[in-house]
Amino acid sequence: MDIDAIINILKKELDPYRFKHSLNVMETAVTLAEYYGANVNKARLAGILHDCGKNFKGEEAIKYVRKIGYEADEIEILQPKLLHGIIGKQLAEEVYGVTDEEVLGAIRWHTTGKSGMNLLEKIIYVADYIEPLRAFEGVEIMRKTAFEDLEKCIVYCSESTIKFVLKKGALLHKNTIDTRNHSLMLIRNRDEKV
Amino acid sequence: MDIDAIINILKKELDPYRFKHSLNVMETAVTLAEYYGANVNKARLAGILHDCGKNFKGEEAIKYVRKIGYEADEIEILQPKLLHGIIGKQLAEEVYGVTDEEVLGAIRWHTTGKSGMNLLEKIIYVADYIEPLRAFEGVEIMRKTAFEDLEKCIVYCSESTIKFVLKKGALLHKNTIDTRNHSLMLIRNRDEKV
Repeated sequence: MDIDAIINILKKELDPYRFKHSLNVMETAVTLAEYYGANVNKARLAGILHDCGKNFKGEEAIKYVRKIGYEADEIEILQPKLLHGIIGKQLAEEVYGVTDEEVLGAIRWHTTGKSGMNLLEKIIYVADYIEPLRAFEGVEIMRKTAFEDLEKCIVYCSESTIKFVLKKGALLHKNTIDTRNHSLMLIRNRDEKV
Repeated sequence: MDIDAIINILKKELDPYRFKHSLNVMETAVTLAEYYGANVNKARLAGILHDCGKNFKGEEAIKYVRKIGYEADEIEILQPKLLHGIIGKQLAEEVYGVTDEEVLGAIRWHTTGKSGMNLLEKIIYVADYIEPLRAFEGVEIMRKTAFEDLEKCIVYCSESTIKFVLKKGALLHKNTIDTRNHSLMLIRNRDEKV
């Protein structure tokens, strides 16, 4: 399916805020991909589709992942919003005909990140935080850092999630911690070598 | 070994701050044990000994745990301070003749906590945070909460660690997250039943 056809479907499927956010993530991801030499078409596709699983909420999300054989962990069961990346990956394949593993991986991991993301996964993870609609404390420094030091920006993004989760009294997913730890370790190794 | 003999050895082994801190944790743990109906003698023993592994630092700590067959994870290797609970447990057995599994467990887990601590483990974990020498933002509310809602106090303690680790730019250990998530889930289940 070409990108215009996908955009037309998403315009109907997503609520107006989510649709605008998806367009923004797509544009931000394209800019980051150009800047860091990633595949721009893959960034565009992953960016527009990253939240295509957002309409599955609560029990419906849990049922959906069970149906596709994904074994949700305790935290995902209690906070099913965490499942929309997994659902999105499945819909990207089934509904939007995406076959590229990198694009599917970027959709899968955009919410929590994970230890050892590839460049496209990092770009979608970061684009989701810094797209123009986002307005929270620290977003400006994150926008600046995204084009100076992608790894450091990932640390900021994951720390922003951790602080938000603490404030809300919600449960913290292990993958968010792994994302931050991994990027911190990469930065240390890199800076030691300089 | 009786408690006075242990105190005499620790007075020589630990630096003055650490020794005073250990006495304080012992006293706070005894008060909490009395309050929550835990075994006071075990609380006293675990409290005084909880930091007995603190003198092993850096490479020395890593070597020590390797020798006793403990497989340290990536974060523990990079931040060997995290190993002093494991070392402390071993020294408690070998040097101070402790055989009680509950006391040994409380020493083992006092730094990060873990998912599903028993009452003694919770008491030592909390006592370590709230003993009178501790002075950091939020400690007063933690002291109050320790005698109102031990589980909630554990959430505060783990969140205090998370914020401190973020501020320092250090790596976050998974067990700290598990400690917080587990206590939050216990609180939710408890409050739902009321």
